[in-house]
Amino acid sequence: MLRQVRSGKMRVEDAVDSLRHMPYEDLGYAKIDHHRSLRQGFPEVILGRGKEHAQVEGIVRGMLARRHNILITRADAALFARIKKLDRRAAFHKLSGAITIVRDRTIRGKGKVLVVSAGTSDIPVAEEALVTAETMGNRVHSLYDVGVAGIHRLIGESRQLRDARVIIVVAGMEGALPSVVAGMVAVPVIAVPTSIGYGASFRGIAALLGMLNSCASNVAVVNIDNGFGAGYLASVINRL
Amino acid sequence: MLRQVRSGKMRVEDAVDSLRHMPYEDLGYAKIDHHRSLRQGFPEVILGRGKEHAQVEGIVRGMLARRHNILITRADAALFARIKKLDRRAAFHKLSGAITIVRDRTIRGKGKVLVVSAGTSDIPVAEEALVTAETMGNRVHSLYDVGVAGIHRLIGESRQLRDARVIIVVAGMEGALPSVVAGMVAVPVIAVPTSIGYGASFRGIAALLGMLNSCASNVAVVNIDNGFGAGYLASVINRL
Amino acid sequence: MLRQVRSGKMRVEDAVDSLRHMPYEDLGYAKIDHHRSLRQGFPEVILGRGKEHAQVEGIVRGMLARRHNILITRADAALFARIKKLDRRAAFHKLSGAITIVRDRTIRGKGKVLVVSAGTSDIPVAEEALVTAETMGNRVHSLYDVGVAGIHRLIGESRQLRDARVIIVVAGMEGALPSVVAGMVAVPVIAVPTSIGYGASFRGIAALLGMLNSCASNVAVVNIDNGFGAGYLASVINRL
Amino acid sequence: MLRQVRSGKMRVEDAVDSLRHMPYEDLGYAKIDHHRSLRQGFPEVILGRGKEHAQVEGIVRGMLARRHNILITRADAALFARIKKLDRRAAFHKLSGAITIVRDRTIRGKGKVLVVSAGTSDIPVAEEALVTAETMGNRVHSLYDVGVAGIHRLIGESRQLRDARVIIVVAGMEGALPSVVAGMVAVPVIAVPTSIGYGASFRGIAALLGMLNSCASNVAVVNIDNGFGAGYLASVINRL
Amino acid sequence: MLRQVRSGKMRVEDAVDSLRHMPYEDLGYAKIDHHRSLRQGFPEVILGRGKEHAQVEGIVRGMLARRHNILITRADAALFARIKKLDRRAAFHKLSGAITIVRDRTIRGKGKVLVVSAGTSDIPVAEEALVTAETMGNRVHSLYDVGVAGIHRLIGESRQLRDARVIIVVAGMEGALPSVVAGMVAVPVIAVPTSIGYGASFRGIAALLGMLNSCASNVAVVNIDNGFGAGYLASVINRL
Amino acid sequence: MLRQVRSGKMRVEDAVDSLRHMPYEDLGYAKIDHHRSLRQGFPEVILGRGKEHAQVEGIVRGMLARRHNILITRADAALFARIKKLDRRAAFHKLSGAITIVRDRTIRGKGKVLVVSAGTSDIPVAEEALVTAETMGNRVHSLYDVGVAGIHRLIGESRQLRDARVIIVVAGMEGALPSVVAGMVAVPVIAVPTSIGYGASFRGIAALLGMLNSCASNVAVVNIDNGFGAGYLASVINRL
Amino acid sequence: MLRQVRSGKMRVEDAVDSLRHMPYEDLGYAKIDHHRSLRQGFPEVILGRGKEHAQVEGIVRGMLARRHNILITRADAALFARIKKLDRRAAFHKLSGAITIVRDRTIRGKGKVLVVSAGTSDIPVAEEALVTAETMGNRVHSLYDVGVAGIHRLIGESRQLRDARVIIVVAGMEGALPSVVAGMVAVPVIAVPTSIGYGASFRGIAALLGMLNSCASNVAVVNIDNGFGAGYLASVINRL
Amino acid sequence: MLRQVRSGKMRVEDAVDSLRHMPYEDLGYAKIDHHRSLRQGFPEVILGRGKEHAQVEGIVRGMLARRHNILITRADAALFARIKKLDRRAAFHKLSGAITIVRDRTIRGKGKVLVVSAGTSDIPVAEEALVTAETMGNRVHSLYDVGVAGIHRLIGESRQLRDARVIIVVAGMEGALPSVVAGMVAVPVIAVPTSIGYGASFRGIAALLGMLNSCASNVAVVNIDNGFGAGYLASVINRL
Repeated sequence: MLRQVRSGKMRVEDAVDSLRHMPYEDLGYAKIDHHRSLRQGFPEVILGRGKEHAQVEGIVRGMLARRHNILITRADAALFARIKKLDRRAAFHKLSGAITIVRDRTIRGKGKVLVVSAGTSDIPVAEEALVTAETMGNRVHSLYDVGVAGIHRLIGESRQLRDARVIIVVAGMEGALPSVVAGMVAVPVIAVPTSIGYGASFRGIAALLGMLNSCASNVAVVNIDNGFGAGYLASVINRL
Repeated sequence: MLRQVRSGKMRVEDAVDSLRHMPYEDLGYAKIDHHRSLRQGFPEVILGRGKEHAQVEGIVRGMLARRHNILITRADAALFARIKKLDRRAAFHKLSGAITIVRDRTIRGKGKVLVVSAGTSDIPVAEEALVTAETMGNRVHSLYDVGVAGIHRLIGESRQLRDARVIIVVAGMEGALPSVVAGMVAVPVIAVPTSIGYGASFRGIAALLGMLNSCASNVAVVNIDNGFGAGYLASVINRL
Repeated sequence: MLRQVRSGKMRVEDAVDSLRHMPYEDLGYAKIDHHRSLRQGFPEVILGRGKEHAQVEGIVRGMLARRHNILITRADAALFARIKKLDRRAAFHKLSGAITIVRDRTIRGKGKVLVVSAGTSDIPVAEEALVTAETMGNRVHSLYDVGVAGIHRLIGESRQLRDARVIIVVAGMEGALPSVVAGMVAVPVIAVPTSIGYGASFRGIAALLGMLNSCASNVAVVNIDNGFGAGYLASVINRL
Repeated sequence: MLRQVRSGKMRVEDAVDSLRHMPYEDLGYAKIDHHRSLRQGFPEVILGRGKEHAQVEGIVRGMLARRHNILITRADAALFARIKKLDRRAAFHKLSGAITIVRDRTIRGKGKVLVVSAGTSDIPVAEEALVTAETMGNRVHSLYDVGVAGIHRLIGESRQLRDARVIIVVAGMEGALPSVVAGMVAVPVIAVPTSIGYGASFRGIAALLGMLNSCASNVAVVNIDNGFGAGYLASVINRL
Repeated sequence: MLRQVRSGKMRVEDAVDSLRHMPYEDLGYAKIDHHRSLRQGFPEVILGRGKEHAQVEGIVRGMLARRHNILITRADAALFARIKKLDRRAAFHKLSGAITIVRDRTIRGKGKVLVVSAGTSDIPVAEEALVTAETMGNRVHSLYDVGVAGIHRLIGESRQLRDARVIIVVAGMEGALPSVVAGMVAVPVIAVPTSIGYGASFRGIAALLGMLNSCASNVAVVNIDNGFGAGYLASVINRL
Repeated sequence: MLRQVRSGKMRVEDAVDSLRHMPYEDLGYAKIDHHRSLRQGFPEVILGRGKEHAQVEGIVRGMLARRHNILITRADAALFARIKKLDRRAAFHKLSGAITIVRDRTIRGKGKVLVVSAGTSDIPVAEEALVTAETMGNRVHSLYDVGVAGIHRLIGESRQLRDARVIIVVAGMEGALPSVVAGMVAVPVIAVPTSIGYGASFRGIAALLGMLNSCASNVAVVNIDNGFGAGYLASVINRL
Repeated sequence: MLRQVRSGKMRVEDAVDSLRHMPYEDLGYAKIDHHRSLRQGFPEVILGRGKEHAQVEGIVRGMLARRHNILITRADAALFARIKKLDRRAAFHKLSGAITIVRDRTIRGKGKVLVVSAGTSDIPVAEEALVTAETMGNRVHSLYDVGVAGIHRLIGESRQLRDARVIIVVAGMEGALPSVVAGMVAVPVIAVPTSIGYGASFRGIAALLGMLNSCASNVAVVNIDNGFGAGYLASVINRL
Repeated sequence: MLRQVRSGKMRVEDAVDSLRHMPYEDLGYAKIDHHRSLRQGFPEVILGRGKEHAQVEGIVRGMLARRHNILITRADAALFARIKKLDRRAAFHKLSGAITIVRDRTIRGKGKVLVVSAGTSDIPVAEEALVTAETMGNRVHSLYDVGVAGIHRLIGESRQLRDARVIIVVAGMEGALPSVVAGMVAVPVIAVPTSIGYGASFRGIAALLGMLNSCASNVAVVNIDNGFGAGYLASVINRL
């Protein structure tokens, strides 16, 4: 097909369109989707949760043959040691447990992605969002520890809020921060509840419900602790 | 016993102490506690929810023989018409459905009680709290429609917040307002979740959980829609 | 005001207090935010749920003095009759109960907003999203009755999916549609669970949970039955 | 009784019928049902969850006196070592933790049983279903990693789906796969939710609710992670 | 295509296969799937819940052009009156609210389908299952009011249980009946929880959980009150 | 007081009545109620859950000065070793973790207490009930592994059921056994849900709900895994 | 059989035993258990919830041929009018909606059954328990409106508590009363949670959980609002 | 700054922006609010849950430069060893895990704070409340092991209850104690549910619901196990 493109028999747009719908490659225990990053123009992602080190290493080996950035979520130092041997560019983001292999530093997002978090304990999830957005080609900023019980801290940073094109707000406990932030801006706010809290926080349910019931209308919610999803969606929006 | 007090055989303090623990009067289907208002120095209260009009009327008749204020919660216009005939001073508070018969206007609360509400729909519960606190001898103020998605409205009223000795915050949906208010003051905040909302508000559970997980420490919570309880507790605190 | 300070007519402390934030206009039972539509460049919105007809009519009268589009959600035919008298351009969208007064037909959204729904019963919520997005200046399309149990219907419409810049997916019961749609495109998908279903659908909880756990990463979720919120957020994204 | 059969005094059908309802044998701490496998024509099964190694070993010893296949679920390598000594034919299925001792390879199921799973993490439960069905005398096939966010993978395998007489679909997270599969075939689909996921998956509740609310009508559901039950029921159906 | 079949250019099997995957007919607000009944060999079904009478009448008109049986669930007497005018063969099943138009009395199921219910109040759901299975071409029997607190009633009917090829068990309250029945037979048991009960039955949740946790392995569960689904699935199984 | 009884100044009944209401002895971190066993005629009980070994040992030392039986629930082998040194009569019930020191073997219960359990895994809770009832002076019998999926086992033991004066039924998973047992007898049945199960058993909630919704009326329920409570209540009833 | 008894060929005990296990009479839509009242020595009971008036009337007609007391729960005035025509002895208990036809006033319970309730709103459930126990041949007393927030009322009635052989405690809201009562007596306490309350009472769940977690060990719980069950079980215990 | 405006050195717009709020001090990963203790007149608090020892040590170092009391919650012996080196006045409260550095022993609370607990297992949470209130300058008393199943113990301490100005009641299991206590006094009662219990206590939910539904009106509730919050709020009230 690519030869047809070269020879002019096929338009580039058609080729891309075709590639977007080519079937997957069947690797036995998994159907790896080599065209996924191409189709969506994003890095290759390995969700580390529940995968064995050997499995992850195997998948990374396969991915290294290509040129995209690679993101591994929920990893640990031991896995990082193995990945580091495969590619010296690998970096470990300790707080969130993310490993990145950045081979393409093109900025694809049109504006800034801002990651806001309520408490210090929410930072691991916030960082996962931040690293994801960065690896996907965005300029990212963060604004941490601006929980609603000290509202003046947030008000003091309103300029930063207004500079962002997409905002990710990470909060546990009562999950009130996204509503306040969303009321101060006119851009989309992606709310990430965290499982931080105790007792009646019910491992993030309180925050999740708070965010779903936000009285601000420019808020949408992802799963509890899903920093990766928030960073991914923010990147999708920021490329529009 | 009161004669003993008069004759000096009994100290006043002892008499009050005794009265506080005198047995109740058994009226068959209910054990009416005539000394309750004396013991706690508060008005007589009839929780109207689920009582028949005739029952309420009967109880009010009995209470009128005494001189305390009377508060009937969750009433309606038809009941008010009957109560109005018993005592012309009866007043109907339409939004909350409360009926009051105020016979004693002594201010017993030492400071102001402020009732704050997030949305217009929360006003019925807020008013129940306000009427309760007022009937119990407090100076009360209200501050409505200052939800967290328009945080500048609340900030603009910070002087009012700082003037209060006790604050009641009423909010449905995500229930985030008490945290923000409590972070701006150094007085007790009583949070009242309301059943306002839809979908994942689960009839007030989202707001309740949000308030229980407040990141501000000067907040305590009462039952969903329990404006009366909040007004009562605020009065108890304001008399200290 | 600052000029008053400079000229010495106002004390510094008073100025600080005033400045804390520019006040909104206080209309007694509500603090109407005349600058909201200006600030965010959007129409004026009245959430009809739980407001009385007279209240809504009053608010609309005030809004008509301005030139923005007006959207009233969750209305009925009786309210429409009253609004129609205020402005002949008022239109009633029967399925969703929305009333619109469109005075500005400028297209502000850069691409198409597509509203997809799973079943016929989900259409009211889908229409609310669609009307909202349209009133906010977007070109909108809809694709209804493409539930996942007849996946060939959705596959057959894949071109429509790829033509959209933002997609809203509305589904009740198992809430599986957003995952399937999101896997077929590279744009943001806003998932709206509906309360359609019975038994173990628990008034939309099943669909909500399904969407929060979506295995596609370009999905974010709003509250159950919140078509308005989805349309609003889609518009915010489509203007970026 | 069997002598009566031999001598012709009793018909074979009646004898089988009687055997099916003979009382159990009381082994003190358990009432072992020696006729169970006969009655239902199935292997002897030991649910390993929560049983001690010595207990399981004892039960297996008893069962070896008979000629049926033996299936032990939720075992581990240490238990396998002990069982291996009892019978060299014992095999360990590492992913699901199942141990099988296959002594009878008769195919009793009339068609193929297909086990489909959504994600790699669902494979342990899928394998338990597969091993169960195989030990019970079925031809089984598997189709893994065909989650709904990459729907083209599933479409590409539609022939395999149509070749099966009973289909087991295993999925965690949003549990959407059974609806899609069931819509593509006209045979019974047994849905197995798994506890795979995090946050709002609530250890399989999201998947369970999704499956119970399936918009396809040829779907029934078993307990979360109950691969054994699905394999067992599929075998019961496949023998009809 | 059918001409190709006639002329011998296409094998019948291939034609049926093609028909099974022909696209749907798009009727605007719904994508009616004319080939559905052909594809799956079943009657045309209209789920009445939440559809307006005119809508249902319209769909029935379209279906009458074909020769399949028609089943309308959750209807009422008024709708029946309208349908009766369209086709005199229409019958109304009062307890369950089902309407059937039976035009094809071929028995397609290979054995008997037995519907068992625990209490008198469960009969409407049981009848929906029974009517569905009957309309789909099965010989059906019923066994009502055999709840587990009077276990001798069920034991007394064990022959009926053993005569069935598929059993549907309908129960509310504690939902224990499917386990008992399943333990007495070697055929598949489809359990239908009902919303019958009060207090801690939580509208069928208690029964649903009981059935999902059945200690018998030949049981699978459908949604609360989903008699139709049970009857449908039983028919799918009984045709195998 | 006892001297008054001896001298005839006080009737025995009055003395017992007084003793029943004598104040407790305040031991600082706990108010030990020395008259509790006297008042209720029962042994002294130490709920071991969450108490440190030293604490339990200390309390036992104090109790040994008296002559009642002693029951320690939820203990382990290490604690037993310490208790054994205090009193050689101490016995350890390994399955339930109960330790008993029986010094009074008087039978106080008027009939037999029967403990029935559904599965082998429920035996620890069943044994706790059995040991409690035995230590409290009852003749106890047990009937294990008679779950409802093999109903003939239970039917075969109906004589045992009819011989009991109080029956305790212990069951996890669907919790159906108490209904079946209660329907076969005319005595009180105390149902104990256990946390045995997985997935949708939700650590005993399924069994608890099943038992609360029992269609038999001679059933009452205690907390999940509360074998002690069941044994205690059975003893209270059996002494009546 | 009865003739065999008369002629001495069968012992009375054996006859009773046989009768206890005679099969039921199959009345088509219901299997009426004529021997139920004989077997358990109790009145005939019709649970009125969800039965039509004609159905109940029919069943009563059948029962009148016998001599037992008849109890109909959850009836209304209209049904009572019909029943009154069948038997003039019928009485209507307005608060609980129970209808009784008492034809046998033998006292079968050995002691007193005491029904205690927390609030005035709990009386309907309390009365159902009381009427049930009375119809089943017990001397019953009641003690109403002794909620735990006025603990002196309960203390003042401690003699009444000690006079009972079985105590039923009915409470909504926090459901704390059974624990307090049970701590004051040495007899069995049957706790009945009611759906009285609002907000976080969740229709009786708060009370139910409170009772299941009672720190007193002589407490068992029945379903929410199940006054009948409590009265029935109390009668079973009181006959022991 | 305003002087700069007056003198013309600063533009009005810049001043407005700056004034929006006075900044806090930004310490990178946390925004430490040095004025917080000043503003509210309370000690500096470090919530230890989830913070690393090094982090806590760092924050304490910073705080030691000031003169307020310091409270660290949820610490352990190892952390205490490090803190002890920073300041010899540090004290470790073993049961609750609190560390205090008391440098200011001024009594600021006007009356006594009484901490009441139901069971021995609730003491850790009770002690956290007690230590918090003490560190915040209150005279505190405690009353432990007065659970409602032995109500005479509580009655015996009624004088202590009446001597308090604010009462904190800590209880797990059914959470009934706050209602009883609140009914005996006329001061505010802060209820703290604990996660003590098992089975249907659901880690404190039963106690939480019980307290929210308290039939006494002078009760408010904080999060499960939130002894710190209760002590903090009690201090806020006691300073009024």
